[in-house]
Amino acid sequence: MQPVEGRKRVIIESLRPEVNAGCFPVKRVVGDLFRVGADIFTDGHDSLCARLMFRKQGDLDWQETAMQPLANDAWEGSFALPELGFYEYTIKAWVDHFRTWQIDVQKKQTAGQDVKTEIAVGLEMLRRVLKIARDQDKQRISDLLQQVESCNTSEQALALMGASETARFMEDYQEDRHAAYYPSFLKVEVDRPKAGCSAWYEFFPRSWGRSPGRHGTLQDCLRLLPEISRMGFDVIYLPPIHPIGPTKRKGKNNNPVAEPEDPGSPWAIGSADGGHKAVHPELGTLEDFQELRQAAGEYGLEIALDLTLQCSNDHPYLQEHPEWFRWRPDGTVQFAENPPKKYEDVIPFDFETDDWRALWGELKSIVTFWIEQGVSIFRVDNPHTKPFAFWEWLIAEIKKDNPEVLFLAEAFTRPKVMYRLAKLGFSQSYTYFAWRHSRQELTDYLQELTQTETAEFFRPNFWPNTPDILPEILQYGGRPAFMMRLALAATLSSNYGIYGPAFELCVSESLPGREEYQNSEKYEIKEWTWDQAGNLKDFIAKINQIRKDNPALQSTANIAFQECDNQAILVYSKHDAASNNFILIAVNLDPFHTQTGWIRMPLEQLDLLPGRPYLLQDLVGDEKYIWTEEWNSLELNPHITPVRIFRIHHHLRTENDFDYFL
Amino acid sequence: MQPVEGRKRVIIESLRPEVNAGCFPVKRVVGDLFRVGADIFTDGHDSLCARLMFRKQGDLDWQETAMQPLANDAWEGSFALPELGFYEYTIKAWVDHFRTWQIDVQKKQTAGQDVKTEIAVGLEMLRRVLKIARDQDKQRISDLLQQVESCNTSEQALALMGASETARFMEDYQEDRHAAYYPSFLKVEVDRPKAGCSAWYEFFPRSWGRSPGRHGTLQDCLRLLPEISRMGFDVIYLPPIHPIGPTKRKGKNNNPVAEPEDPGSPWAIGSADGGHKAVHPELGTLEDFQELRQAAGEYGLEIALDLTLQCSNDHPYLQEHPEWFRWRPDGTVQFAENPPKKYEDVIPFDFETDDWRALWGELKSIVTFWIEQGVSIFRVDNPHTKPFAFWEWLIAEIKKDNPEVLFLAEAFTRPKVMYRLAKLGFSQSYTYFAWRHSRQELTDYLQELTQTETAEFFRPNFWPNTPDILPEILQYGGRPAFMMRLALAATLSSNYGIYGPAFELCVSESLPGREEYQNSEKYEIKEWTWDQAGNLKDFIAKINQIRKDNPALQSTANIAFQECDNQAILVYSKHDAASNNFILIAVNLDPFHTQTGWIRMPLEQLDLLPGRPYLLQDLVGDEKYIWTEEWNSLELNPHITPVRIFRIHHHLRTENDFDYFL
Repeated sequence: MQPVEGRKRVIIESLRPEVNAGCFPVKRVVGDLFRVGADIFTDGHDSLCARLMFRKQGDLDWQETAMQPLANDAWEGSFALPELGFYEYTIKAWVDHFRTWQIDVQKKQTAGQDVKTEIAVGLEMLRRVLKIARDQDKQRISDLLQQVESCNTSEQALALMGASETARFMEDYQEDRHAAYYPSFLKVEVDRPKAGCSAWYEFFPRSWGRSPGRHGTLQDCLRLLPEISRMGFDVIYLPPIHPIGPTKRKGKNNNPVAEPEDPGSPWAIGSADGGHKAVHPELGTLEDFQELRQAAGEYGLEIALDLTLQCSNDHPYLQEHPEWFRWRPDGTVQFAENPPKKYEDVIPFDFETDDWRALWGELKSIVTFWIEQGVSIFRVDNPHTKPFAFWEWLIAEIKKDNPEVLFLAEAFTRPKVMYRLAKLGFSQSYTYFAWRHSRQELTDYLQELTQTETAEFFRPNFWPNTPDILPEILQYGGRPAFMMRLALAATLSSNYGIYGPAFELCVSESLPGREEYQNSEKYEIKEWTWDQAGNLKDFIAKINQIRKDNPALQSTANIAFQECDNQAILVYSKHDAASNNFILIAVNLDPFHTQTGWIRMPLEQLDLLPGRPYLLQDLVGDEKYIWTEEWNSLELNPHITPVRIFRIHHHLRTENDFDYFL
Repeated sequence: MQPVEGRKRVIIESLRPEVNAGCFPVKRVVGDLFRVGADIFTDGHDSLCARLMFRKQGDLDWQETAMQPLANDAWEGSFALPELGFYEYTIKAWVDHFRTWQIDVQKKQTAGQDVKTEIAVGLEMLRRVLKIARDQDKQRISDLLQQVESCNTSEQALALMGASETARFMEDYQEDRHAAYYPSFLKVEVDRPKAGCSAWYEFFPRSWGRSPGRHGTLQDCLRLLPEISRMGFDVIYLPPIHPIGPTKRKGKNNNPVAEPEDPGSPWAIGSADGGHKAVHPELGTLEDFQELRQAAGEYGLEIALDLTLQCSNDHPYLQEHPEWFRWRPDGTVQFAENPPKKYEDVIPFDFETDDWRALWGELKSIVTFWIEQGVSIFRVDNPHTKPFAFWEWLIAEIKKDNPEVLFLAEAFTRPKVMYRLAKLGFSQSYTYFAWRHSRQELTDYLQELTQTETAEFFRPNFWPNTPDILPEILQYGGRPAFMMRLALAATLSSNYGIYGPAFELCVSESLPGREEYQNSEKYEIKEWTWDQAGNLKDFIAKINQIRKDNPALQSTANIAFQECDNQAILVYSKHDAASNNFILIAVNLDPFHTQTGWIRMPLEQLDLLPGRPYLLQDLVGDEKYIWTEEWNSLELNPHITPVRIFRIHHHLRTENDFDYFL
């Protein structure tokens, strides 16, 4: 077990961020500055030099940047992420004998000790480097040597040799002296900015027919675009737009027997009209989809397509590839079930088929087909019921040629499973947000998502409702609850979405005793009166505008919870250092009663002393306040607005500075 | 990036315990049950089967034991560690289709669904296994098939096929269906029990001469053994016993100029009489050492030798191997320094020498020399000033042939450095205990040592004093402080030690303003009156006896801090489940005043309801109490005893049961 090089004295460990010992990349977006830390140390008290090494994956050469020591043997460095794709990073470090010498000799001089021999030691080091230096550096060293040799006093010699430029110059020539390398390369995956900040709007095209009772088409949806855009969303998510199987189609409210006019669930994909690469004829054609996609783009809206890897009983795959399904001894195909629940209209693929290679290839071709149609966001239905290895392969394969593509995982399941899907490549993930209501629940959950390793790979997307989920608070809390839950989703998380117009119209009728919609749009065509009284469209537009105007709200992990003496009020802040944008959000979690609380302004984060004035601009109510103290009282009437989003202007020096704002 | 086997559906991650992603072993002692956990899950809702695999390092075959699912996708298994050395462990897991079938069919039957086809599915599985089963199993399966086929009802068939024995039997035949393996083998190092529980006594042999002024010898130390043994220690640690160099020898109180009669520091090793493999002539001979070692063994005392890898100016190595040292331009050898501090009597090795291989080999030969003399514990001086790679190599080399050898790291340095030394192989480590006094400091430090990953590799050894360290509290706190600090060391940590007789004689004179001894024994020969009034020998004997009698005190990581309303009182408990030994310790941290506090008994850990009587046996004061409530008042007078160590007898069912104790 004799090591190759026993003189390699530097230890580099706990490189961070790192996910599962480097098995998975951490995630960032284009334009981020990527900070890397590690514990770096050696025996004894020698000085170290540490460099962060990085390269775009595929590049042959590494770039280097100096790391800085922090407290307790921790070091930090950073590099920019200008491009989509993967970057690799690692660290090298070595004992910096010259800087060690500089520090030691300085201490000896300060203590009044004789340093003649020390100067001789330093000169030896310079002369040794002179021999190996690059040509362009030789002159500099020989000049320095000459100057030192002509000094009359130790003080003069040390002033030259002890200069920090001299140490910086010498660094590179120490490196060959047994540099240590972190034993592996880690990876960071760089997505486009929308992976980190997005506002989603889900709706069912078929409910937007031109006249009552008429099946809506993709063409019909063109008229929705201006309003969705005015509300400030940037992603439209469409439930599956493929042909729906007629066999064992579900009726209203998931009735196992459908009436002839029932349209069926869009997630029962496939009919004689085609499968995952076809458009449901009643919705229109591929050309109609193209037109909608392009028109949406002109409104700043991107279409996210659903990716549901399962079939109806009528999907062509069942005939063409019976080997991809599980057949029962009675000759029937195995439908989806979670005993005793049965989903007779849905046939899952058998991922344990011997023909799994062909199956995977075909499923990949569905994704590439829609990418060719201009789609670059996929909302993936129930990914946790298909093998992890499949997703890891599929996403890697797709992103190799299309690094701009994003995948949202709709995995409402156990936490380890959700996190594993995020690690293996999903860009964003649905969360437990819909079931987190109290201050303690929200605080604990956000701490887990933002203050632990989870933040490195799991990008939460907060949905207050979905076609499957109508949480209790929206059933009984009325319009204030919808406002409160929207504001929470949109400001706790930089990625969020709603299922509309059920959301903005405050639809609250549930199946008795369940958190599901009564007369769910999944099984029937609805008629919406989008402008009905009490709708939240203007409120949503305001919140989305605030998100766009304030960089602090475009990140999730920058959240800090603040103190408030009233448990019904949740207070948190977000800060963007680059733009000096500091936002404080207060939300009344009680949709029924006005709540008043004393909240603590984190003056230390604002670099403010108690007594100094600072200005709060309420971006929701368009009001302004001047506060001077650390603790301040706040009242939130849920029937007016359950939320205040304050922008804090804290770099004001005198009261007169407020004139500009007031 | 196509995977080799796309049907491998099980994920195994976060295997624990694991140190630095498996780069280093975790530590246990012989006789421990080793618990291993992991997160194990698959897509969908299929049942899993998980096996913990383990083997003694060097064995070709793996042993297997079933793992059990806990909450939230966590699984746990365990295996025994009967032998010294390394064990390897990993995990395999697979989808258990038969058990999945059993659970699903059970749910369907309960819901009143028809299960005829399900039974046919189950029979298919049994018939498939019949083909591949081992000969001895074939009969069992065909019997089962026959019985099922002759059943008249589904209920009868399912009673046979749904039995848990059937699932257990089928487990092994599911395994070939794409079992997943954790991607690496982890290691656990098994030391002898003394690595986990030991009581050390350090003393300077030279101070124990037969008459005043006479240099003590190893022979003279024979007469100390009965008393050290009576005090209950099991390790004697001797400062270096090698020849001391005369050149630049330090005088009293580290005076750079020694008087002729000054003996010098034992850590300045080497003279014309020899180096690290020789015995200082004034102490005696190798034969004397042998005699002392054997006599000690008869008293249950093991001698730990000091391993200080540095030289005096007179060490033979300087002449024989000048290439192992750093020479300065003025022709002098570089002595040890930490500018502006100078240690002119100590010459460090240059571990960056080109001849490092020969140096390492020679240093190893020192250790093997003393192992041949019967030594199997080394207290290593300042390991943090020698390369980590050297220690990793040395300890591995030694333990390959001598797995019983233990190394205690005396590295009073930064936490990351101390932890790295423990990871790479040191069996025990000195700690910051000497500088942790307040309740908050002690609680925080013990939490770090016992409730984090640290507990897996770092075995703390708590010393209230050393020849180098006389903490302030021992300077001003008098005898109660010595009692309090000894009790803390001995009951917080299962490994502890004292430097005596300075400790038990409560020596408190320090250098002015420093935490160092006045007239330190490191630089002069002391005369001790071991039996002087006020000595703590009986108290120490009692505490060590309590440690021996109570298995709960023979572990460190089993500590739990308990509530007390008085900040001056520290309350903690230790529990050994195997022996049902529950100990509660209360320490008055104020050496001057009687403190009274309400302490909370952790009834939930004791399986007791408030109101049930339980008995406290004070093992220090030999008193007994019956308590019935959760909160109880306690008074601690430091001038009588600053500590109570209660053994809790909590499985008493009636008041009469107390008669035995009262």
